[in-house]
Amino acid sequence: MTQFPPFLEETDDTRDAIMRATYVALCEHGYNELTIQRIGDEFSKSKSLLYHHYDSKDDLLLDFLSFMLDQLEGQIPTYRAGGADDHIAEIVEQTFDLGVAEMGTDFTRALVELRAQAAHDEGYREHFTRSDQFVRKHVAHTIRSGIEQGVFRDVDPQETAALFQLVFVGTMTQRVTSDDDILEDGRSAFERYIRECLLEAE
Amino acid sequence: MTQFPPFLEETDDTRDAIMRATYVALCEHGYNELTIQRIGDEFSKSKSLLYHHYDSKDDLLLDFLSFMLDQLEGQIPTYRAGGADDHIAEIVEQTFDLGVAEMGTDFTRALVELRAQAAHDEGYREHFTRSDQFVRKHVAHTIRSGIEQGVFRDVDPQETAALFQLVFVGTMTQRVTSDDDILEDGRSAFERYIRECLLEAE
Repeated sequence: MTQFPPFLEETDDTRDAIMRATYVALCEHGYNELTIQRIGDEFSKSKSLLYHHYDSKDDLLLDFLSFMLDQLEGQIPTYRAGGADDHIAEIVEQTFDLGVAEMGTDFTRALVELRAQAAHDEGYREHFTRSDQFVRKHVAHTIRSGIEQGVFRDVDPQETAALFQLVFVGTMTQRVTSDDDILEDGRSAFERYIRECLLEAE
Repeated sequence: MTQFPPFLEETDDTRDAIMRATYVALCEHGYNELTIQRIGDEFSKSKSLLYHHYDSKDDLLLDFLSFMLDQLEGQIPTYRAGGADDHIAEIVEQTFDLGVAEMGTDFTRALVELRAQAAHDEGYREHFTRSDQFVRKHVAHTIRSGIEQGVFRDVDPQETAALFQLVFVGTMTQRVTSDDDILEDGRSAFERYIRECLLEAE
């Protein structure tokens, strides 16, 4: 049974319904086996709407990725009360749990496949560039706040956020492409890094 | 012009020639556009040999990945003279440079696409599991040596190697799927991690 993120609840709005059908079909079939026809099978309205709006599977998927990123951007507040050390702990939690608690492993599988399209497709590369910049800006901002609050050491926020980004992409990819189960060990080492390299000694 | 790793030099051996043709075609076309026909176009012997030996493109690619991993395993010595701190510096160099100096970005693109196949294909997942285990064992061994030599702190070798593995996969993926150029920043942060979390204070 497909798990849904909260912003993909059933709806009467046509675009939202297309996005929901895309999510379901993508989780079920993966990128290679996905077709507009199969997305249409999950869509309660007329399938001709899909062909009318989108030239190709990739055209629809790029719109879907953009929709998902808009939702994510809307969910993350620009100002947050509380300590940056707590926020970093949440980011680590999300990094090592991504796609499992909220959305299920099927969606992580699909995201990794979609990201790989960016190796040869400029449209996907533009999307993931935008997505990476958003995530990295959010992490760098949190680190900067932590330095100002005196809870983090005086590290370079951009460099530190870049390492977070690499660990984030690596974790997501590793989770669904290998049975070598290293995520728990990797998380322990990364949390040690945060304690010893990022947090101000008490 | 395709760059070749040293073990893919021109040869009379049939399997080696198939591996070389696969490498060239994969770098040129990427996974999605690759066909046995296109591999045959790079092959100086009879194309029927390819169809005789392999049932499908994926069958050939899995044999190719296995060949590449055998070569890599053969290249890395089990015993090395010198300090583990120097070996770790080499591993970091390889992590952030992979596919650029020796093999060119085209091959990294192809590897990221092949890895993404593992999200839905058991054969690819088995390969990358074996590949990950090899890399991680090598890194863990180097860390263990460094602790014995007194150049590394008393960290958990398995956990530390797992983080190296995540950064390795993340770097490779990020390099070819995003124009958000963070590798230099990520490397600085990772080197800082090694100085402050791994190396014994002098």
